[in-house]
Amino acid sequence: MAEAGPGGGITREELQLAARNHGTPLEALASEITPVGLHYLLTHYDVPAIDPEAWRLRVEGEVERELELSLDELRRRPAHTIPVTIECAGNGRAQLDPRPLSQPWLVEAVGTAEWKGVSLRELLDEAGVGHDAVEVLLSGLDRGVEGGVAQAYERSLPLADALGEEVLLAYEMNGDPLPPQHGFPVRVVVPGWYGMTSVKWLGRITVLAEPFDGYQNSWAYRFRQSKDEDGEPVTRIQPRALMVPPGVPDFMSRERHLSPGEHELRGRAWSGWGPIELVEVSADGGQTWADAELGAQPGTAAWRPWSWRWPVDSEGTYELCCRAHDAAGNVQPLEAPWNLGGYANNAVQRVVVHVGTDPAGD
Amino acid sequence: MAEAGPGGGITREELQLAARNHGTPLEALASEITPVGLHYLLTHYDVPAIDPEAWRLRVEGEVERELELSLDELRRRPAHTIPVTIECAGNGRAQLDPRPLSQPWLVEAVGTAEWKGVSLRELLDEAGVGHDAVEVLLSGLDRGVEGGVAQAYERSLPLADALGEEVLLAYEMNGDPLPPQHGFPVRVVVPGWYGMTSVKWLGRITVLAEPFDGYQNSWAYRFRQSKDEDGEPVTRIQPRALMVPPGVPDFMSRERHLSPGEHELRGRAWSGWGPIELVEVSADGGQTWADAELGAQPGTAAWRPWSWRWPVDSEGTYELCCRAHDAAGNVQPLEAPWNLGGYANNAVQRVVVHVGTDPAGD
Repeated sequence: MAEAGPGGGITREELQLAARNHGTPLEALASEITPVGLHYLLTHYDVPAIDPEAWRLRVEGEVERELELSLDELRRRPAHTIPVTIECAGNGRAQLDPRPLSQPWLVEAVGTAEWKGVSLRELLDEAGVGHDAVEVLLSGLDRGVEGGVAQAYERSLPLADALGEEVLLAYEMNGDPLPPQHGFPVRVVVPGWYGMTSVKWLGRITVLAEPFDGYQNSWAYRFRQSKDEDGEPVTRIQPRALMVPPGVPDFMSRERHLSPGEHELRGRAWSGWGPIELVEVSADGGQTWADAELGAQPGTAAWRPWSWRWPVDSEGTYELCCRAHDAAGNVQPLEAPWNLGGYANNAVQRVVVHVGTDPAGD
Repeated sequence: MAEAGPGGGITREELQLAARNHGTPLEALASEITPVGLHYLLTHYDVPAIDPEAWRLRVEGEVERELELSLDELRRRPAHTIPVTIECAGNGRAQLDPRPLSQPWLVEAVGTAEWKGVSLRELLDEAGVGHDAVEVLLSGLDRGVEGGVAQAYERSLPLADALGEEVLLAYEMNGDPLPPQHGFPVRVVVPGWYGMTSVKWLGRITVLAEPFDGYQNSWAYRFRQSKDEDGEPVTRIQPRALMVPPGVPDFMSRERHLSPGEHELRGRAWSGWGPIELVEVSADGGQTWADAELGAQPGTAAWRPWSWRWPVDSEGTYELCCRAHDAAGNVQPLEAPWNLGGYANNAVQRVVVHVGTDPAGD
């Protein structure tokens, strides 16, 4: 993965990705469930057009009984519906310096949807997992070339993670069939993990007796400082809090304008390592912090709401920050942790706010 | 509006816009009606959260009878449903050099939806347009600061355009209530015009006896070469053809890979000045052109499908282009027409394709 030089502007190739993919506009953090079309989206290749009548899901490899299921057959099995926060592993990448060249996310590549589908564990139980099994390979129907390697998008998950969690094979998002861009007709949803494992346009599940060595596991999505390292795999989501930017935006700078007074700051926080236990807010760029109030977390796999009343009497410019702590003891850093792929940069969000008697403010 | 220097990379401010707004991924051009969530989206300020029960539409100014309508009252009036292609006036901006600093679109800021709603003309007839009327001001409920001016987003339309066309006040998109990001609960849809006039989150319609001199009409959305000029207003959509990029993409470069053989290239073409009469395709970067086959245009305001069979025997790299001609005699240029705001750059699309025996190709 190449890098931009220090301070270098976004390249045309990065822009091509940024123009087709999109984050969740931060004001949509006001919603517990992100509306379709506002939920972040990263498509590695093209969104494939799949005929749901012809579509089949195959379950094969180290299993006692191979399965081949139509969409109707999948929908007739017991269904589970859970709200899940999914974040892109590359969220925060464009804040790194030097900047790894890939989809240039700032902080907005996260969303929460209500996913409905079949339990992967229950389907694997039905197929009967062999004694030699170590991983489960999830293969999508989207194809392209990446890092010089022609491939269908596919990722493996360790067997314990595939069996031990509420991993879904989802066919509905927010009460409707999946839209094309979110994996129609069926996608994987792995709660707690970065989005690369939630394979869209699922076509095949292969139980493996050896670890998968394909591109998306062995080369991409690894924490490395240089190309010579094997690196550790990217797995669960690091904690992050984001706020709904208060007041109204400047079109170009996205800096905020609001009037003096007491303002309620609101946002959401999440972690793949454990429940959110504390969110702190700073109105002075991270010099001093106050504890936010926490709301109820909707299920174990979705973001937790927080709020904080900010009394601001003086006109001027402020830098608002927030940071999350999880039950596993993880806390967001003030400085970005760098790695070659630009993964998991959960450095705190910074929102510039101009307090004044601007008539468009509120 | 500032500019980037020649060859300058995309700035952080442009990236902030590109990360929240998004184009239509070009593979979605395969669909006559763009699915929600794939349709391009440009939000000047924030997507406002509007309570549909409390929402009212006011019609005032130079009218015989002021109106104030609830959403139910609007929905009880005669409804019209039409497919409309909407394109952002800034589409193509990021291809200009020097590059005007704003939302950095390449070519993908266009989409087609089925919009259902009330005719603006019928509503204005009900209110009774005064004899002094010259323009109709359409005011949104979204607010922000732009070019140093605090404002709600609002644009005026000349009276003849407001009355003489199938201008809709739409409350449904593709058969469902508008999603928040497309203007819920009610937006304007002005067929044939660039998207800046299709005001979202509509709150008020004001019939004016004098031309509107607000920011979005008098400063933004004008063709000028320098800040000293008044410039001509941006109005209708210039012709453009886009193709579904054939084969499969490289993740980063978005260049395409496909096998030798005969490939059907497909795409859509549209113009706000008249029906599409001809689409030409080039497989050699614009040196030679062939006529595409045209399909039926779904209504007067939506894009027209086209296709062309491309026989390619030799491995190698090709640059595919397409260009549209409309019934008014407009044709897409090969070189981008520059202006200060970066509007209406309809220079031909160029798609790089590698033909070879790549196993991911098709």
